[in-house]
Amino acid sequence: MIVTLCRKVLAAALLGICGASLAQAQSPDPLPSWNDSPVKASIIDFVERVTMEGGPDYVVPQDRIATFDNDGTLWVEQPLYTQFVFVIDRVKAMSNQHPDWKTKEPFKSVLDGDTEKLLSYGEKGAVQLVAATHSGMTTVEFNDIISTWLKTAKHPRFKRAYTDLTYKPMIELLDYLRANDFLTFIVSGGGVEFMRAYTEQCYGIPPWQVVGSSGKTEFRMWDASPTLVKLPELLFFDDGPGKAEGINHYVGRQPIFAFGNSSGDKEMLEWTANCKGLCFMGLVHHTDAVREYAYGPNSDVGRFPVALLEQANANGWSVVNMKDDWKAIFSWEKPSP
Amino acid sequence: MIVTLCRKVLAAALLGICGASLAQAQSPDPLPSWNDSPVKASIIDFVERVTMEGGPDYVVPQDRIATFDNDGTLWVEQPLYTQFVFVIDRVKAMSNQHPDWKTKEPFKSVLDGDTEKLLSYGEKGAVQLVAATHSGMTTVEFNDIISTWLKTAKHPRFKRAYTDLTYKPMIELLDYLRANDFLTFIVSGGGVEFMRAYTEQCYGIPPWQVVGSSGKTEFRMWDASPTLVKLPELLFFDDGPGKAEGINHYVGRQPIFAFGNSSGDKEMLEWTANCKGLCFMGLVHHTDAVREYAYGPNSDVGRFPVALLEQANANGWSVVNMKDDWKAIFSWEKPSP
Repeated sequence: MIVTLCRKVLAAALLGICGASLAQAQSPDPLPSWNDSPVKASIIDFVERVTMEGGPDYVVPQDRIATFDNDGTLWVEQPLYTQFVFVIDRVKAMSNQHPDWKTKEPFKSVLDGDTEKLLSYGEKGAVQLVAATHSGMTTVEFNDIISTWLKTAKHPRFKRAYTDLTYKPMIELLDYLRANDFLTFIVSGGGVEFMRAYTEQCYGIPPWQVVGSSGKTEFRMWDASPTLVKLPELLFFDDGPGKAEGINHYVGRQPIFAFGNSSGDKEMLEWTANCKGLCFMGLVHHTDAVREYAYGPNSDVGRFPVALLEQANANGWSVVNMKDDWKAIFSWEKPSP
Repeated sequence: MIVTLCRKVLAAALLGICGASLAQAQSPDPLPSWNDSPVKASIIDFVERVTMEGGPDYVVPQDRIATFDNDGTLWVEQPLYTQFVFVIDRVKAMSNQHPDWKTKEPFKSVLDGDTEKLLSYGEKGAVQLVAATHSGMTTVEFNDIISTWLKTAKHPRFKRAYTDLTYKPMIELLDYLRANDFLTFIVSGGGVEFMRAYTEQCYGIPPWQVVGSSGKTEFRMWDASPTLVKLPELLFFDDGPGKAEGINHYVGRQPIFAFGNSSGDKEMLEWTANCKGLCFMGLVHHTDAVREYAYGPNSDVGRFPVALLEQANANGWSVVNMKDDWKAIFSWEKPSP
């Protein structure tokens, strides 16, 4: 009880400018934006069982580790991953200093606005763009660039800041878990600095509980001031098998709860499913073309292959049907009746 | 108040088999094992100033980041770093499967018990020994090996488990900081898995707040079970400049409080000293040959060069004189009158 109260006090201190507000007043329904459904019931059943002292499934608070993918699980990832939009904007902003980019791929496709061709360069192209735009400055300078961008950039369809596009039901879920003394972590393929710029305000998740992909830095003394310079070299790639490796490396404890939405989350869910006692594995399925997007097996962004759905069904993992399971998707949206 | 109470409840749940117990009853003196000294006064003054709401030096709780070196700062590092003793024991235990080690350095020196020669191979030798003994098994198997070793190994001088050799005054300091809503992190050159085996029980520091050196792992399916196999490749080296890089990478926030004891902590202290408001930098100076060890500028283990002492004095960093400043060093030791 005291622990729960304390977490609420801490969370309330972090209220930000995000779409959903954290640490809402306790409600008889801990997940008010979720329709009554098997997924909602299984979440509540799981939380009640692992928190029931003396029960057969009880887990001590320090072992209540919950890991969440970010893009497509906690916020919108269509039509492009938010950080990819940021990278595109950075290439445009930096192009004056790089005249060769006009004829050099994948930069040329960015400057031509040819998204289809850009996506055809796949992961290798993305790595080139990230290396060029995420290095050569200090960490402080880079964080300022991200914060400024997040304040001004708008989503092409929703015409809102990207930080307004977090999923209200998932924010409620994060809050519900923390109210039950879970530790919530993000485990995402996205860049760790990019995420840390908003995860504390938008999700109530502090920087050291954000696991992501990252580049190397180098400590240098500049004008007698210690400085970290960002290098164009990968340090850690946190996707697919990297998510299981990342959980071990950064969190250092086996999760008992994990949520993802695409093939990049497969190994995180398998790793979580390997827990000793009761564990919960969930996937968000994007099925709502009207309120958000409907996509899956054939999507370049957030691919959810049929094989993953079959694996989920075969192993009793929960799959959220966004259209049917969520009363509201965004905090600024009127809940459906 | 509630936050403080909550942290105490959490800490009390973690009482272990370590030398010092965490979360002792509130005392009028928050650092009872510290003699009244300028260092003690400066710690208390710092904490009171950054926690005084409305005061000019106030820092919000989520920014109260404190980072601590481990070996020589939180526990004994003489005559050899504890993990180095573990490595030596592992080489001996594994030598039957590696007949070539009898003639191959640096393994030969280990098997011959020639510590002086072993130390002459320096960092390169240590990396070879760590790679050979810290890879080729699953992460679960490795954690079991560490836990078993920690339960049975004894320090050659004190004849006690290494986990009994934590410094009581520093445990009090960790607890005092957390009682004032600081987040405490370890930032050490030691291996992250080795430390995580005891940091929660001995220091009240959970695995995700332990920053250390690490090797790569690889996700594999073995008999349909997800497994992480330890590879003989370095992922991150957390010493010297790596400590500033590691704080940025793993913690993601600027510390306002840092404690070390050797040249490997220089950059962590410089990075901390670069904070925007009030910040505290401390060093433990080992000056007590009777109760512990006296060493510094010429030591192979935990070198504290004269230049670092001069830098500390010039910049107002606090230097603990162990002999004079600490009433007791270990929890099992009778305090001096």
